[in-house]
Amino acid sequence: MNNSNKPTEPVSSQFVPTDRTRVRRYPARARYERATIEAILDEGMVCHVGFVHDGHPFVLPTMYVRDGERILIHGSPLSRMLTGAAEGLALCVTVTLLDGVVMARSAFHHSMNYRSVAIIGRAREVIEPTAKLAAMRALVERLIPGRWADVRQPTPGEIAGTRVLEIPLLEASAKVRTGGPVELAEDESFPVWAGVVPLSLTPGEPISDAKLAPGIEAPEYVRRWRCAGRRP
Amino acid sequence: MNNSNKPTEPVSSQFVPTDRTRVRRYPARARYERATIEAILDEGMVCHVGFVHDGHPFVLPTMYVRDGERILIHGSPLSRMLTGAAEGLALCVTVTLLDGVVMARSAFHHSMNYRSVAIIGRAREVIEPTAKLAAMRALVERLIPGRWADVRQPTPGEIAGTRVLEIPLLEASAKVRTGGPVELAEDESFPVWAGVVPLSLTPGEPISDAKLAPGIEAPEYVRRWRCAGRRP
Repeated sequence: MNNSNKPTEPVSSQFVPTDRTRVRRYPARARYERATIEAILDEGMVCHVGFVHDGHPFVLPTMYVRDGERILIHGSPLSRMLTGAAEGLALCVTVTLLDGVVMARSAFHHSMNYRSVAIIGRAREVIEPTAKLAAMRALVERLIPGRWADVRQPTPGEIAGTRVLEIPLLEASAKVRTGGPVELAEDESFPVWAGVVPLSLTPGEPISDAKLAPGIEAPEYVRRWRCAGRRP
Repeated sequence: MNNSNKPTEPVSSQFVPTDRTRVRRYPARARYERATIEAILDEGMVCHVGFVHDGHPFVLPTMYVRDGERILIHGSPLSRMLTGAAEGLALCVTVTLLDGVVMARSAFHHSMNYRSVAIIGRAREVIEPTAKLAAMRALVERLIPGRWADVRQPTPGEIAGTRVLEIPLLEASAKVRTGGPVELAEDESFPVWAGVVPLSLTPGEPISDAKLAPGIEAPEYVRRWRCAGRRP
């Protein structure tokens, strides 16, 4: 494995905020504990990767997985984002989970409950085929636990045709808003309902592929599939 | 209203892809029709705003609303992102909706169904208090239709304490993946279930604020609240 981004010292339970990751707005919502940051990263399925190209910012969604002290993303070797990233371009990887619509008595204090993580860093390309295969496995297994052993394994050509990047999980912060509306004491008697409508990303019934051969049923890990935050 | 970003000519039903918005990877997933782009923007609740600060990319989630041919975002005048944006910083605003987990017979072809829009542009600050109030109303009403008339209206101080930015919806593209797995013909007989687990962001039961006065019930627009894509 290409472990060069992995620290050799014991991992700290806290991230040290830097100029780039310190939460400035609503500092009470800032979280720097590793456990909080990892839990958010392990629940999300898509990250938004920001990079600079010709002086302009670009933000693209992509799948990812946290693997210890790094984030893995993958895609085509032809991707502009991945090519730039493989060349050491600075990235910001942001993961956001939406938890609720916060309805205050005052228009001004309406908000959303959310948990987000921003990671700043430079990517390193994972080159070695065994390490790339392990990354592909991590991506599938995190999304659908139990899936890897059932599916047709990647060929050498597919491994070669996948660019895998790792971003070190070294410079990161989280921002978390939970709970009900926070508003002025003088508004508390305003005669309107206030509270939260919780939100969750929920699965529907599995839809079988049109070309599925007769007699093949969805396995339990598909029928009982849940978002990572709601798995038993 | 600060309408200076609104085109005076009839709005085209198609966006013209530019070097910055043309979808390069999976061009079959690219969408440039205005109706598709607007529908995605009108369904999302949070966008990811990318900007460059000291040469580094940053990506922050924030609420937004589409209002005609512009995107409105808001926040504190102290926000670093909004301050830079108000000064004409280039932005990329990306909205992503997750629609499903795509399970192929081959590990390599696992994917996600999604709809995303990326908008490139420079923000302009909305200064005039009546226009800012209209933007605040649009933000609340898009999130919770019917809410505005019920709540305590913004004071002049709250309006002054909110920075509102508009980003013109002029340079934009969408990327959409729908349907089942796409894989090699030779894999179609591989004996494993393949298909899609659909995903949707769904509301739970409303949670009343702890300080809610007795006798105040959640109104119908709260009890029946749905994400914008699922409203009747």
